[in-house]
This record gives sequence, structure tokens and C-alpha cells, in this order.
Amino acid sequence: MPDVSDDARVVAVQRLYDALAAGDRAGIDALLHQDFVGHAAEGLPLNMGGRHAGAEAMCANLWWQIGRHFTARAIPSDFQVLGDGRLMVIGRYVGAARRTGHQLDAEFIHLVEFAADGRISTLHQLTDTAAWHAALDAPAALETIDYHVDAGLATLCLNRPDERNAIDLRVAQETCEVARRIAGDDTVRAVLICGEGPALSVGGDIGFFRDGGREHFGDLFVEMTTPFHDAFAILSGLDVPIVTAAHGAVAGGGLGYVYAGDVVIAAEGTRFVTAFAGLGVSGDGGGTWHLPRLIGARRAAAAYLRNTPISADEALEWGMINEIVPADRLRQRAADVARDLAKGPTRAFATMRRLLRESWHRDLPSQLLAETQGLKATGDTRDAAAAITAFAAKTTPEFTGR
Amino acid sequence: MPDVSDDARVVAVQRLYDALAAGDRAGIDALLHQDFVGHAAEGLPLNMGGRHAGAEAMCANLWWQIGRHFTARAIPSDFQVLGDGRLMVIGRYVGAARRTGHQLDAEFIHLVEFAADGRISTLHQLTDTAAWHAALDAPAALETIDYHVDAGLATLCLNRPDERNAIDLRVAQETCEVARRIAGDDTVRAVLICGEGPALSVGGDIGFFRDGGREHFGDLFVEMTTPFHDAFAILSGLDVPIVTAAHGAVAGGGLGYVYAGDVVIAAEGTRFVTAFAGLGVSGDGGGTWHLPRLIGARRAAAAYLRNTPISADEALEWGMINEIVPADRLRQRAADVARDLAKGPTRAFATMRRLLRESWHRDLPSQLLAETQGLKATGDTRDAAAAITAFAAKTTPEFTGR
Amino acid sequence: MPDVSDDARVVAVQRLYDALAAGDRAGIDALLHQDFVGHAAEGLPLNMGGRHAGAEAMCANLWWQIGRHFTARAIPSDFQVLGDGRLMVIGRYVGAARRTGHQLDAEFIHLVEFAADGRISTLHQLTDTAAWHAALDAPAALETIDYHVDAGLATLCLNRPDERNAIDLRVAQETCEVARRIAGDDTVRAVLICGEGPALSVGGDIGFFRDGGREHFGDLFVEMTTPFHDAFAILSGLDVPIVTAAHGAVAGGGLGYVYAGDVVIAAEGTRFVTAFAGLGVSGDGGGTWHLPRLIGARRAAAAYLRNTPISADEALEWGMINEIVPADRLRQRAADVARDLAKGPTRAFATMRRLLRESWHRDLPSQLLAETQGLKATGDTRDAAAAITAFAAKTTPEFTGR
Repeated sequence: MPDVSDDARVVAVQRLYDALAAGDRAGIDALLHQDFVGHAAEGLPLNMGGRHAGAEAMCANLWWQIGRHFTARAIPSDFQVLGDGRLMVIGRYVGAARRTGHQLDAEFIHLVEFAADGRISTLHQLTDTAAWHAALDAPAALETIDYHVDAGLATLCLNRPDERNAIDLRVAQETCEVARRIAGDDTVRAVLICGEGPALSVGGDIGFFRDGGREHFGDLFVEMTTPFHDAFAILSGLDVPIVTAAHGAVAGGGLGYVYAGDVVIAAEGTRFVTAFAGLGVSGDGGGTWHLPRLIGARRAAAAYLRNTPISADEALEWGMINEIVPADRLRQRAADVARDLAKGPTRAFATMRRLLRESWHRDLPSQLLAETQGLKATGDTRDAAAAITAFAAKTTPEFTGR
Repeated sequence: MPDVSDDARVVAVQRLYDALAAGDRAGIDALLHQDFVGHAAEGLPLNMGGRHAGAEAMCANLWWQIGRHFTARAIPSDFQVLGDGRLMVIGRYVGAARRTGHQLDAEFIHLVEFAADGRISTLHQLTDTAAWHAALDAPAALETIDYHVDAGLATLCLNRPDERNAIDLRVAQETCEVARRIAGDDTVRAVLICGEGPALSVGGDIGFFRDGGREHFGDLFVEMTTPFHDAFAILSGLDVPIVTAAHGAVAGGGLGYVYAGDVVIAAEGTRFVTAFAGLGVSGDGGGTWHLPRLIGARRAAAAYLRNTPISADEALEWGMINEIVPADRLRQRAADVARDLAKGPTRAFATMRRLLRESWHRDLPSQLLAETQGLKATGDTRDAAAAITAFAAKTTPEFTGR
Repeated sequence: MPDVSDDARVVAVQRLYDALAAGDRAGIDALLHQDFVGHAAEGLPLNMGGRHAGAEAMCANLWWQIGRHFTARAIPSDFQVLGDGRLMVIGRYVGAARRTGHQLDAEFIHLVEFAADGRISTLHQLTDTAAWHAALDAPAALETIDYHVDAGLATLCLNRPDERNAIDLRVAQETCEVARRIAGDDTVRAVLICGEGPALSVGGDIGFFRDGGREHFGDLFVEMTTPFHDAFAILSGLDVPIVTAAHGAVAGGGLGYVYAGDVVIAAEGTRFVTAFAGLGVSGDGGGTWHLPRLIGARRAAAAYLRNTPISADEALEWGMINEIVPADRLRQRAADVARDLAKGPTRAFATMRRLLRESWHRDLPSQLLAETQGLKATGDTRDAAAAITAFAAKTTPEFTGR
């Protein structure tokens, strides 16, 4: 293949990845030789594996099929020109299965041959096919969180009671996984966050941090907080209200579950502590955003710098939580409030949550305009019509969330 | 007129409206034929009606006269070429009378004839002349609000006591009207907002919503909140302090009058409730901007999503109001505070209000710079000079607002 | 010198100042004649004074020497062409000594002669040499503030007790001077702000305002608040925590010292009052930024417009301060807290302070990302490694601030 340079091969394959990501059929056709043959890993789900002769078959049986079932893209990380002129690309498929919301993260190797005109003549794909199956299987096996949806109420219950729901990589990832499922489930009209065992969550799992004997923790913290923070960004953007039931010593990143709640109900004796200063780190979970807005700048500074614990009574007085109940009534009370919200005017709630979230970076005139636009949208809902009728009739409206 | 296309006629008339809006005399002259004759509606006030021969007379007797007495512009909405070649333009004059601040919103029809060279040769104007008179008449008849200015104190008193000051379209419009009058009155040095009857305002008038048997409320809410929110944007931008006296069940959009106050004094037993969730809508009055800044993000979320009422005691404890007084002393106390502010250093108040309003979207160094600029402006006032002299002399300064 | 115009002379000298500010040796060489001789003021420190023959010597002995020891630039304000063709430039050297952080502000006169080709042939420099010495001498004589650093704790103690630490120009400048020293001292790991005498600071010194019998105060306020606000901008950006001990009547700009604290401890009976409205001015010290974030928008408005005093108890309840102690224990308690912070994880503190400061102008997803980046940086510190090890061993970590 004297007429195809190594560089040109790499460029051609990168263009193919771009065309695939863009769903650009014409771009794909231009890159593939007329005699193109693809070989997909045999074990792939959805009958995607095996030999596909021609661009048409490759698209229909593999690439478009992936697009129908996954939001995934191929991210190459290494290009090697082999002795025989083939190009070997190593990388990962990253994304999620559409149906389950479960994350896909599967290694691949692509072996690419080129025709004399520089076009791609064959593509052999190897990949971790089990990861593809796992992403499709619903529900993915959650190990650290109990998750279920019942009558419009999604419950995310941390379930590592022996570790007081300490957050290791798995908890971080599963929190993100559950947040994705909630965001993708139209039947959910409210969320309850709670935890089994003696505390909602004591924060980062120090034992897990120390596994492997590392001396620097920055990379580990990035790996853990990336899905953990994705989870809170997703929860913040939900259209439905969130109720958090807090109890025990809620610390460090575990406070993130408290900040995520629109309504927070705490058991008597609950204590909140940032704890980050004690570990010599700056902290996660969104506390530097939420705490100043919840309890004011001065108390937030003390909570971070002095590591001052906040009692349930202080949290109530300062506006960090909404209600304190006896510990044995916590779960029931929080579930009642959440169930009540699940029967509410969901579209109005979605707009209220968005307006309150966006309020901080708008001036008053802009926010007034946004409120007017929100009233246009929610004033046209069936729930508004039903409620206004019920109000006049002095009856209680039934909200359907529409 | 074979040499003037329909399109060219529309363009010429649109240019005329632009030139009038810009006060561009040369632009007007270029568009009018040398033999131009205008016919203004006979019933117009200020002797503006009748025949005006020539551009000179038309400007002097009609257009410049409008500009002297109104901030109004012609907004065309429909252009029709008639069978005889004339152009008919339908639209509205929108603006306000300068003296009264009263809104002008008057339909017009313009019939325009063209000379062979494409210039405008005649313009017949018809308009709702009563609307022009009404805008000029001071005070415009307010039906739902008592408004008066006394010794520098402007009082806006909601006066639909039998409806507990519920907000229909008229109340929304008159709130805006009064806000404009206050903003346009240099003698005003403080504002008192209060309400007659059992409550400051219970919010939107549900009976009014249901008039006409509509099933979708979005458009009605846009129509109502447009002037209502204009009112609060204007009040927020005032140079003078606002005191609100709150009593009874203050709900929904009625809370907007509470948010508008710099100082809020409430009668014992006052209750504040967003109420929007009960109607399946997202809410108005600026609450999604004000409440998180007044009582914190968590309590604001509960007030919206859970529709949790806020008692006067909670409102005081949480920083939503400044003072609670017995109901029979409310009006007197609020008026005393407002009168006191009306005797204060008005220019310093204007700068303080602006700095506090702008604080939310500035970082500290920028705000420090803005404070320095504010001190330059207010340090040069007569009030500052008088106060610094009085301080040294251990006397009480007399502020003139200059 | 018929071939060098006056304008060209001014341009050449301005270029020289620019080249000096930029450290542009080639640019300097291009402007100086080959026989250039410089005469620096004899009394300059660091052996910089006297005759320097040639550009090489002038750079080595004067200009580069200045750059090594000062961050200063020459700011010309007046150019005069003398009768003999020389150019006289009057201006100021403005900057600071690198070692002490002390401000340099020294007048200069430059007398410049030109060769026939338009290049600069001689430069005679006169300057206030004492100002140069003073800037280098550490510590610069502070008259109104006691400043010292001990075991990582920097103490800024206002010391005009007879004036109740009222703020005149000197206090404002020295507050800025001390802020610069703190920012430039790597050994500082915490800051304590306090005041001698009956109050932390009663705010602006009215007697000083009235000196000179001025009738307009705007320019004076700009002169005073420029260094005063620089001080608070610098303190806000510090990497280390600040503890403020407040007592007595803390008023006006004196509140700036309270706002600057991350942790504020007040003596029983302390009163906080903005006081600005009483003087007819809008206020300084950053209160319009801090107060709404500390005590909410409504109370902040009352504190400014109504000039309502805030008692220590209210300040504690509203989140403006962290703790109240008996007056005779104030200094000790505040110093204990500050010393404790000085032994903390300084790099984590720096990141926490930055995150909390920047929180107000970020949305939650951006702040979550910033927290992840902060964890990467602080998770890699020695303090984090030591703390995580200590946590697992159930011992107390020793933080070194690295």
C-alpha cells in the first residue's frame, strides 16, 4: 500500500468515528471502499455480531442498531500502524443504554485495512461484549443502593448499613446510575432519598481511599466525584421534587444527599458536619454552592474552615432542613411528604424548581419575565384547569401531572 | 400610480414610522411629497386634530406636539393596499402621557396616498381619540387603588376590600399605572404600600380567571402579569424607599407587594402563602427571585412545592419582614416609618437601593468599586454636607433629598 | 537641536518609560544614544545613586536594580520643554518594595537631553529618596495599626484607641499596607483582626473629614476608600482564614473588618450599625455585598435605609457572627480560634475560601466541577495524605500547610 501514508490512515479512521458519532451516512460511505467488509465481535447483543458485507449491511446491522439502543460513541485513545500496514485502534465505547439508562463503558480494539485508494476495506471489531449486555439488562444490578418506583414515587435508599453508607466508587457510580434512571422515567413524579443503617451517609469511605496504598488521592477523588457530581447535577435538573430523609452523622460528601432535597426532614439527633478540613481536602457534594445559600456565608465558612458540626436544631433554625421528627417516624414521615408531592401538579413543580434554580443568576426583571413565561406554560396545563375549577367549587383537585 | 410598487409603499410608510420614532426631521421631509397634506382625527386633544398642510405644519401641529406630551410610538400591525392604490395601515399608539404617567394604548388607522415619485402625498389618521384624552387627564381614574402623594410620601393602597384585594386585570394594570406615576414624580421621597379590608391581597382573582369559561389560562396570565411585573420592575428600580404594611392572608401574586418593600411591617396574625401549587401553576410576583434571598433556598422550596404557609412570627424570624405590630396599629406604624424615610437623605437611599439590588450579580471587588463610586456621588450632596456638619455639632440634620 | 521636534522628544521619553515598564532592553537601547550618561539621585538606596555611563551601566546599576527590589513604575504627569531644549518630566514612581510589601510613592523630576539624532543623551533624575528608603525598611512604620506575625498567625490590631479606631486616610492606607504584607508573607497561615480601646472601629473619622473646611466630600471619600477597598479585596482573596474579634460600637466602614472575617467572634454588648444614612452617604466597606448574603435582603435593607442597629444577639441569630463571649475573654478566644486555624490544612482552606467566594456567580453544575478540581489539587497535598493516614489510625493529624 505504497500510496496510503500512515497519517492518512489515522485521519481516515478518525473521520469514520466522527461520521459515526454524527450519524452521517454520506460521510461513512465516502470513507468505506466499495468492497468493504465489517467483522463485529461475535458476542454482541441484539444480533449485532458477525460479518457484515458492505456499508449498507454494516450500518443496518451494527452501527444504526447501536444508535437505536445506546447513546454511545467510540473514543479512540491509541493508534498503532502494524507491520502489515493495518491500523490498530484501541479505545472505549462510552455512553448508556437507552432503555435502562445504565452506563456503557466497554473497551474496543479495531483492526482496519485499507484499499489502494486509501479507503477502508475491512474493519475487525473486538470489544468487551459483556459490558454491552450488562448495560442493556434492566435493572442493572445495584449493590449499594435500593431503588424502586411505586405509584410515581422513586425511592433511592443507600444500602451499605455496615459502612454507615460511606461513599466508595461504587456508591458514587450507582448514585449517578439511579439519577439517570429517575431522569429517564416519565412515571416518576417525586423522589425520596434515604439510607439504611445508623446514618444517611458518613461521607467518603476512608478505608476505600487507602486501598492500594496510594500516597496521592487527587486522581482517585476525581474518579469518584465525576459520577457523584454528575448525579447531583442530574438530580438538580429533575422536573420532580425530591424529599431527603436525614439521620445519624451525615458528613462530607454524604451531605450532598441533603443538599439535593427540596424538602429535608431529619430525625432528632441528626448531626451535619462537612468533615473535609479534618481530612485536609476542600470537599465535594456541592456544599460550597448550597451551604451559603441555605445558612448564610458566615455559618458556611465556619462549617468548612472550623469543621463546626451543625445540630438538627440549628439546621432547622438556620433553614437547612424543614422539619425534625422522632427517629422512628422519619422514614414514614418523609415517604408521606414525598407521596403527597407525587400527587401534585408535576408540571408546575418542574417550572418552580427551574425558576428557583435559575433565580441566582438572574436579575429581578429577567426573573419576572421568566415567571410570566412559566405561567403561560403552566396556566395551559390540565392540572391548572382542574385546580381552578376545583377552587371555585371548593373541592380538592386531582392532579395528574399533565 | 404605475411607478410605485406595493412593496415600496409599505417600505416608505415603515420608514416614516421609524423617522417619527427617532424624531428625524430630515428623514420625514425626505419621505413626504412637497404638496403633502395631513388629516388628523378631529377629536384629538391639544388642538392636534384637523388638516395640516405641508410637512412643516404636520410636524408642528401634530407630531412634535405628540412628542412633547407623550412618550408614544406608532406600532403598525397590518398593511393593506386598497383597490385605489392607497395603503391602509392598522396599528396602535403605545406609550404614556408625560405629565400623568398614564398609559396610552390607542388604535389607529392610517390611509396613505402616494405621489407619482413614490413620496407620501396625503395621510389620513383615525384614532381612538378618547384614549388620548384619558391619558392626559390627571389623575386617571383609578378604580382599584387609592393613590395619593402627601409631603413626599406616595401611598398605594389596594382598595377592593370586598374581594380582599384580589388581583384581576384592572388591579394589575393600575398597579403598573401607579408605579409609573411614582417613578415620574420628583416630589416623591418614599412609598407606602398597603391595602383596605381584611387582607393586603389574597392574590389572583379566581372568579375573574373563570370569566368567559376559558379552559386554558396561559394567555390570560400573560396578559395580567405583563403590567403586574412591569410594576414590580419599576418599583424595584425606584430611587426612593418602599414600606409595605401587610395584614391578613397574603397569598399568591399578592406577595409581590410584600417583596416590593424595603421595609415590611406586618400585623399580628398575618399569614403568607404562595398558594400557586394549589392552583397547579408556577407563580408570579417575583417570589422565585425574592424568597430564596429572603428566607433561604430550602424554605423557599417548601413554600412553593409544599405550599407551606409562613406565619408572621416565622417571617420575622426568617428575615422576610422587619416588624410585627398589633393589627390596629399597623397602618399608623407603617406610615410613620415611611414618613421618616421620606425625610431622609434621598440620594443616598437611591444609591443604597441600587447597590443592594445590583449586589447579587457582582463579585466583591466590583461591588467595592461601585461603593466607592456611590460615595463619590453621595459625598458631594448637600445632604451629606449638612449631615457631617450636624454630626460634628451634635445636632440632627435636616435632609432635603438633594 | 533643530532636527528634533518637541513632540518627538516627548514621544521618545514616553517610549523609554514604556520600555522600562516592560523590561525591554532592546527597546531601551534603541532610545539611548551611544554616549548616554545617566545621573541618578545621590541619596537612593542600594547604591543606585550617582553617575552611570552607558546604557549597560544604567540598566545594571539603576533600572534592573529597581526591578529586583521594587514593583514600581514611573508615571509621568507633566512634560515641559525647557528654553535650552531639554525636556523636563515631572511624575511619580508608584509601586511597592518587594521585600516589605510597603508602598512606594515618590515624586521624580527627569531632565532629559537629546543628541542630534533624536536619541536620549543624558538623563538627570531627582526623586524623593527618603520614600525609597522607607519602602525598603521593614517594618515600615505603622502608626495606626499594630501588626505582627507569630507562629503563622498574623495579627492586625487597630490602634487608635482614643479615636475608637475611627478611620482616617492613614488607617485606610495602613489597612491596605498590612493586607499587602499578609498576602506577600508565605509564613502566614491565619489572620486575626482586632482593635484596641472601646470599639473595634466606629467607622469614618468625622473630624478628619472636616479638616480643611471642605463642602464636598466625594473626592475625599474616593481617596480614602481606594486603599481601604483594595485592602478588603486583598483580604478576600487571601489563601488563609481570617478571624475577626468585634467589640463596642462597630459602625460604618468599621464593619468592613467584620465582613472580612471568615469567623467572627463578638464581645457581649457589641452593636453593629451601618450609620451611613445618618451621614447622608451610601456607604463603604463592602456591606452592600456582604450584608444581604449574611442576614438576608430584608434585614440588610433596613440596616442601610433605616440605619437600624444590630445587637450581638441578633447578629448571632441572623448568621452575621459565629460566637459571643464575655468582653474580657474576647481577645483570648479569637486568638485561640485563629491559632487553631493557623495549624490547619492551609491549602484546603485556600481552596475552600476560593470556592465559597466564587460560589455566588456559578451555577451548581459549574460549582460541582470546581469542587472536583479542588479535590484533585488538595487530594494530592501532604496534609491530605497525613490526615487520611491519621484518620485510619485514629490519631490526630499534624498539618504543615503543604
